[in-house]
Amino acid sequence: MANVNIKPLADRVLVEPAAAETTTASGIIIPDTAKEKPQKGTVVAVGPGTKDEPITVQVGDTVLYGKYAGTELKFDGTDYLMMRESDILAII
Amino acid sequence: MANVNIKPLADRVLVEPAAAETTTASGIIIPDTAKEKPQKGTVVAVGPGTKDEPITVQVGDTVLYGKYAGTELKFDGTDYLMMRESDILAII
Amino acid sequence: MANVNIKPLADRVLVEPAAAETTTASGIIIPDTAKEKPQKGTVVAVGPGTKDEPITVQVGDTVLYGKYAGTELKFDGTDYLMMRESDILAII
Amino acid sequence: MANVNIKPLADRVLVEPAAAETTTASGIIIPDTAKEKPQKGTVVAVGPGTKDEPITVQVGDTVLYGKYAGTELKFDGTDYLMMRESDILAII
Amino acid sequence: MANVNIKPLADRVLVEPAAAETTTASGIIIPDTAKEKPQKGTVVAVGPGTKDEPITVQVGDTVLYGKYAGTELKFDGTDYLMMRESDILAII
Amino acid sequence: MANVNIKPLADRVLVEPAAAETTTASGIIIPDTAKEKPQKGTVVAVGPGTKDEPITVQVGDTVLYGKYAGTELKFDGTDYLMMRESDILAII
Amino acid sequence: MANVNIKPLADRVLVEPAAAETTTASGIIIPDTAKEKPQKGTVVAVGPGTKDEPITVQVGDTVLYGKYAGTELKFDGTDYLMMRESDILAII
Repeated sequence: MANVNIKPLADRVLVEPAAAETTTASGIIIPDTAKEKPQKGTVVAVGPGTKDEPITVQVGDTVLYGKYAGTELKFDGTDYLMMRESDILAII
Repeated sequence: MANVNIKPLADRVLVEPAAAETTTASGIIIPDTAKEKPQKGTVVAVGPGTKDEPITVQVGDTVLYGKYAGTELKFDGTDYLMMRESDILAII
Repeated sequence: MANVNIKPLADRVLVEPAAAETTTASGIIIPDTAKEKPQKGTVVAVGPGTKDEPITVQVGDTVLYGKYAGTELKFDGTDYLMMRESDILAII
Repeated sequence: MANVNIKPLADRVLVEPAAAETTTASGIIIPDTAKEKPQKGTVVAVGPGTKDEPITVQVGDTVLYGKYAGTELKFDGTDYLMMRESDILAII
Repeated sequence: MANVNIKPLADRVLVEPAAAETTTASGIIIPDTAKEKPQKGTVVAVGPGTKDEPITVQVGDTVLYGKYAGTELKFDGTDYLMMRESDILAII
Repeated sequence: MANVNIKPLADRVLVEPAAAETTTASGIIIPDTAKEKPQKGTVVAVGPGTKDEPITVQVGDTVLYGKYAGTELKFDGTDYLMMRESDILAII
Repeated sequence: MANVNIKPLADRVLVEPAAAETTTASGIIIPDTAKEKPQKGTVVAVGPGTKDEPITVQVGDTVLYGKYAGTELKFDGTDYLMMRESDILAII
């Protein structure tokens, strides 16, 4: 996990997507036929949250998120996704 | 019911769908002609809830939910559905 | 009225629809030309309600509801409708 | 005004429409060319109201309401309309 | 200004439109090319307001309102408009 | 700036548009290619504001607002725009 | 960063976009294939914020924002964008 100097605003979270292996070390397999195929990644930066949307994930958490969540960012050769915490389904 | 290591966020609930028998042990039959055919499953993980959406189902509850509720996940060969508690109709 | 073992969630109500007679014992006739023809039934189970949507109907109440309200459920050969209390027009 | 045994829920009001005379005793004439032609009727039953929508009309009030307001109900040969109080324009 | 016996509900206001002169005594001219041509009238009855929409205009105020605001009513040969206070642009 | 006798309601503001010069004395140039070309004007009357929308501009402020904001009004030969304060972008 | 005399209203922020270099001094590269390509700029003026939308960025912050955020303004030959703070993704 790279150390990035980005401060997301409000309830936004910066996620470094995991490599596109379909079977992970922890044994989770994401089926191709899923309606909205979830993706896995690692949280690298979190915003301060808002009054209505407090932030509950932490830097370092491995998370699942929807396939079309977030906006792409590239930093020192690594791709990131900036998304709202509500786009994150679960911590695994 | 498998023991899974997934922590859903907010008001999300992880459900293991029951096998697709149309007549269950408890005698509930879900008609094919239903407008939005409900499905049956077992809750395997629940999120912490939010201020506006507290979680009321518990791990182990058998629940009915709408046919198109949730996002598919596969874990150690078992299919799950990640849904919001508001997608759950009832505990049976 | 059958005794069913279903616990609706939130502001949901389980209703057993009355037989489709157009003139009932209490004299209520529902006109065919009504824009949204109301139906009659008996409440068989109610949810706990929510902070914003408290439940006011009780098990045993005869209620009127909109024609397209709710989701069909079958239990021991009887058809039920699971609906939100806001779909119920009145107690008669 | 008939005495009916219907308890409307929430902010609903049961109204007995006046006969379709275009000039009433009190002299109100509703023009045919009105965009949304208001109708006149008598309130015969009111719901308990809700926290956000308290009920302010009373049984016996003569009210004006929009042409397409409410759902038709027939009881002992009389037609009624079940509507929300917000569909009522004024007490006359 | 006629004295009418109508009690508007909630945040509704009854307005007697001014005659359709395009130049008024106070010198206001409403251009024909305006996107939403405002109209002038006199307030003849106001509702009690609601918690979220208190009433600030008074009976007798001359007001400007949007061209398509309100519902037409006729009373003793005079045309009125029943509108919400939020449809009123200004007091002149 | 003319002195007008109009009291806008709620969060409305009456603005006298500046002449359509594209380069102003203060040096601001509004590009023709702007997606939503802002306009300049002077505030001549403000409403009392509402609980959720307090008024922060003052009579005499020079403001920028969106091209399609507001409703046209003519008074003693001068064109005005009646708009909501939320249509105003900035004070310059 | 130019010193501009513009006071944005409410939760608006005035941003001076950075030159369109795709690799910046801090090493951030914004991919061309991004769904909604973020842009970089410097905050030059901020509004007072609102009760529901407090302002958290400061003048001088370098920020990332969505490609279609804001309204163009030109001042002394420099292009600016007026946007809401919620259009800003992160401070870098």
